[in-house]
Amino acid sequence: MPSRASEEPGPPGVRPTRRIRAVVAYDGTDFLGFQRQRRGRTIQGVLEETLETLAGQPIRVLGAGRTDARAHAWGQVIAFDLLWRHSLGELQKALNALLPRSVVVRQVEVAPEGFHPRFDAVSREYRYRVFNNPLRNPFEERFAHQVPEPLDVACMDEAAQHLVGQHDFASFGRPTQGESTVREVRRVSCYRHGDLVIFDMEGNAFLRGMVRSVVGTLLEVGAGWMAPEAVADILEARDRGRAGKTAPAKGLCLMRVNY
Amino acid sequence: MPSRASEEPGPPGVRPTRRIRAVVAYDGTDFLGFQRQRRGRTIQGVLEETLETLAGQPIRVLGAGRTDARAHAWGQVIAFDLLWRHSLGELQKALNALLPRSVVVRQVEVAPEGFHPRFDAVSREYRYRVFNNPLRNPFEERFAHQVPEPLDVACMDEAAQHLVGQHDFASFGRPTQGESTVREVRRVSCYRHGDLVIFDMEGNAFLRGMVRSVVGTLLEVGAGWMAPEAVADILEARDRGRAGKTAPAKGLCLMRVNY
Repeated sequence: MPSRASEEPGPPGVRPTRRIRAVVAYDGTDFLGFQRQRRGRTIQGVLEETLETLAGQPIRVLGAGRTDARAHAWGQVIAFDLLWRHSLGELQKALNALLPRSVVVRQVEVAPEGFHPRFDAVSREYRYRVFNNPLRNPFEERFAHQVPEPLDVACMDEAAQHLVGQHDFASFGRPTQGESTVREVRRVSCYRHGDLVIFDMEGNAFLRGMVRSVVGTLLEVGAGWMAPEAVADILEARDRGRAGKTAPAKGLCLMRVNY
Repeated sequence: MPSRASEEPGPPGVRPTRRIRAVVAYDGTDFLGFQRQRRGRTIQGVLEETLETLAGQPIRVLGAGRTDARAHAWGQVIAFDLLWRHSLGELQKALNALLPRSVVVRQVEVAPEGFHPRFDAVSREYRYRVFNNPLRNPFEERFAHQVPEPLDVACMDEAAQHLVGQHDFASFGRPTQGESTVREVRRVSCYRHGDLVIFDMEGNAFLRGMVRSVVGTLLEVGAGWMAPEAVADILEARDRGRAGKTAPAKGLCLMRVNY
């Protein structure tokens, strides 16, 4: 379907569309996740509606990753085919003028023919934010999971290092497609910034619920209910029942997709 | 109405109530401001409803300052009279368990008899947050006013210093009570923190709309449309029509009330 991003005219009567790649940030609080669903407001849904308004015809949006309901993104990558007569800067402005205030197109560029944001990605970076204070904070309410008990962040970081490398992560999630639960975690770190405990994780790909399940497990380590080494045992068990409670989606943010 | 905060029993059959002072933080986005109104959700309204649930009878809440619709507070101070048989820690927990997630009681203590959060205050500190970037940021959407054009923060800070001292601020707001528009500004500062431009202001009291009107004026200085010295002229003019456009309430936060 995508035609070449060139200045050459197409066949008579047919104007070439271009495959566009865009980086999108959103506050996912009021959405049912990225992926379009039959009912309910999704990020893909509002992006497709907005593009349809601009293009005058239905436009299909591809995304790099399905984020969960209430989860956020700073660097979700999308692609779509569009016939656009003006500059890319004008496309970005037009999209941002029409999109709800909780969704922003941060960057727009022409992508190579056939570019696919999910299949072409080589790694994804996620961040999970924990607000570590016994008292709620209304300003952290949407973007962090509150944990009242003190967390030992050094222990959490130590435990997290067991996950680095290529492993079968069956204990921490289900595959989104296919049967394999093997993924490669390239980098994890857990650190404190005031009342916030930040957890960063980069991997080639992630199982469904994997980051939230890892964070839930690390929170048990941080609270002193589990030894850091137990994470290695859980990983080895390949048993979904062994991991800690899945941490709530609102602390999760897709930060970046690398190609 | 308030009775002494003591351990002595009251007259037979009458249990003493105590005047309680509390510090309250809120995300004001979904509220029509602090002050109770006939229709619509207000901070005072939800506090009074929550206290009524706890006390089994209507409780009147006094506040240090009326914040505008969509404006926030980190350190709003309230007072109310309550008969409470348990500890203050338990009162705070009970309130926070019942209040909506956008409102938090940060501190609770017994206040001297007759304590009034508004009349006893000696100064208020406000903060105004500007997100200074041409692109919207969904994570700053609720708590900052976006300004796309580059701002010269040094000029804004210079201009703001003209406001320090006791002045007639008639150009920047209307009195909330009485006729006098004289107020004393103790301290103002304007500085940049990454994409955020922060404006802090402390005064004995503020006119209605004063901080937002001052910020709107300083934004014109920061954008280069007005010289820093013009702020002194506007102040001297005592003319509501001379100040810049009132900045939106969502950037405003009542940080602290001093006694």
